[in-house]
Amino acid sequence: MSVCDTVKGLSPYQGGKPISELQREFGLKCVVKLASNENPLGIGQKTLEAMQQAVSEVDRYPDGNGFELKQAISKYLDVTTDMITLGNGSNDILELIAKAHVCAKDDEVIFSQYAFVVYPLATQALGATAVVTQAKNFGHDLEAMLLAITDRTKLIFIANPNNPTGTLLTDEALHGFLSRVPNSIAVVLDQAYVEYLDTAGVAIGWLKEFDNLIITRTFSKAYGLAGLRVGYSISSGKIADYLNRIRQPFNVNHVAQVAAVAALDDQSHLVRSVIANRNGLKQLQEGFDKLGLSYIPSSANFIAVQVKDAPKLYQQLLELGFIVRPVEMKNYLRVSVGTSREISDFLEALKSLL
Amino acid sequence: MSVCDTVKGLSPYQGGKPISELQREFGLKCVVKLASNENPLGIGQKTLEAMQQAVSEVDRYPDGNGFELKQAISKYLDVTTDMITLGNGSNDILELIAKAHVCAKDDEVIFSQYAFVVYPLATQALGATAVVTQAKNFGHDLEAMLLAITDRTKLIFIANPNNPTGTLLTDEALHGFLSRVPNSIAVVLDQAYVEYLDTAGVAIGWLKEFDNLIITRTFSKAYGLAGLRVGYSISSGKIADYLNRIRQPFNVNHVAQVAAVAALDDQSHLVRSVIANRNGLKQLQEGFDKLGLSYIPSSANFIAVQVKDAPKLYQQLLELGFIVRPVEMKNYLRVSVGTSREISDFLEALKSLL
Repeated sequence: MSVCDTVKGLSPYQGGKPISELQREFGLKCVVKLASNENPLGIGQKTLEAMQQAVSEVDRYPDGNGFELKQAISKYLDVTTDMITLGNGSNDILELIAKAHVCAKDDEVIFSQYAFVVYPLATQALGATAVVTQAKNFGHDLEAMLLAITDRTKLIFIANPNNPTGTLLTDEALHGFLSRVPNSIAVVLDQAYVEYLDTAGVAIGWLKEFDNLIITRTFSKAYGLAGLRVGYSISSGKIADYLNRIRQPFNVNHVAQVAAVAALDDQSHLVRSVIANRNGLKQLQEGFDKLGLSYIPSSANFIAVQVKDAPKLYQQLLELGFIVRPVEMKNYLRVSVGTSREISDFLEALKSLL
Repeated sequence: MSVCDTVKGLSPYQGGKPISELQREFGLKCVVKLASNENPLGIGQKTLEAMQQAVSEVDRYPDGNGFELKQAISKYLDVTTDMITLGNGSNDILELIAKAHVCAKDDEVIFSQYAFVVYPLATQALGATAVVTQAKNFGHDLEAMLLAITDRTKLIFIANPNNPTGTLLTDEALHGFLSRVPNSIAVVLDQAYVEYLDTAGVAIGWLKEFDNLIITRTFSKAYGLAGLRVGYSISSGKIADYLNRIRQPFNVNHVAQVAAVAALDDQSHLVRSVIANRNGLKQLQEGFDKLGLSYIPSSANFIAVQVKDAPKLYQQLLELGFIVRPVEMKNYLRVSVGTSREISDFLEALKSLL
């Protein structure tokens, strides 16, 4: 795949500008986007064919209850359909969960420093109180999070692997944490990047033990459907029932539902994507090693690399046609795993700027 | 088009059941859905082709700012792009507007009896106070709405044409109403069915006069894109800026954005759809006349017909394979305009049940 293939026909934004304008501004032949943790292998053939068929049906409203997609998820994860809530991306689900659990201004929501940006945004939007615990080695400090619990705590967000750091908590640590959180507090385990792990299925089993646990997942990352907006949560039937009552009746579009069913069914494309990601991460890490750059070891499809002047380097990379992501951690840039060719071109550009 | 074509490949729900289950339950060869005010002509060829192309790009996040769609709407309506807010269907927009204008429990939201169901739902979701004015000849009683204004009124919803009644307020009446509403109260003019009118563009001009006016529109009805979820509002730049700050960053999916641009560009398909709707409405009205049934004259793509026992007739029609919509008005059923063939089959079925 040539580098330019990755932006053909797209108009994503960077600082409010379409990529085409970025190209004009800096006289770039092509742009490589390593900024949004998308799947560089793209969409599997079976999913593409399912979507080609589905677009002819969009004159009708989507299935507001997501019957077929819930059936597919139910089968895939061995959970009952009444435990599933579908969302317009997992962002929609995270907002619904916050809305469902936070009522008053002094209700507290706990999350970690350097966690997913939607947690503070969702908390702020509801006017609730954010309780941010210090990160430990760039990851979640579960002991600090437990200590932060008060009688006003309503909700705890944990991302595993975490974004933007790529850090991972062990299943033992997470299970121990859940055992110590009072049952009245909802715990969101955000598994947006779970497909890249070996132990992807373990936490689903904990739902039988902890009815305050809500696991969220997305089709935007390893499944390659970011542009369609489809995510979901698995929880107790009681929580799912409430989330389903407060969501918009047709929150997930028809093409997204069809594509997600097809993508779940095409596990060989998922396996290819996960292997390609493992190789891409290795390629990035070895490249950074050669350039003498430190990075946070990552369990996801991106990696945070330490640089001297992150805002300056971000801008310089942009002018060379490489979009990466500035992050909360000072002196770090987050780089998504691209194709092998994209990574080697990126590393070359990076080398020229150091 | 044969009757059965309308449900091929779809799985919309009726009372929580997919249509395929409905077919099994009642031994139906096919089902005609005249329940959701969709475009019976389906999607135009140009839009279909644009979607076929767009599905290969959904591995990337959609444009969070909707650059191209806003450009197209801006050109089409002669408004500036900073006045536009895009939503995951106009439902998303209506919820955002309510969220933006209602803060406290005693904040009041005014809407009419027999208006769109989302208005009470959005009000209720925010815990605000709904002030429902009595309908006048099944339509909005603007004088009653003005009288209902108090110093706690924050928002007024008006649908024109109205759903589920199909009634229409004149531009003169609406303009006079807007002149008398205090500027501190936001007025939503919901134009989901505006494409079916002759004077579709008039209200847009009022935005220069009333900076508390918010006009909402959708691609779900005449443009035939219900399954993709895309709607928008046009308002002052100040209101649009606020709505855009509180919406989800990727609320409108990529295929929806591409399809909406293509649909706006294919005005000949829109004209065909509007003409077909006019003929379909006439066919339904003449049919009802022959059967001696009263109905509310409609300016939209559906019609509310008066029957003796609406719940019973609804069920009987369902068992014959015709899905219509039970509504708030007792003894009325709402029937969407279908294809000519669908309407004649429906009228025949209806005749057999009276």
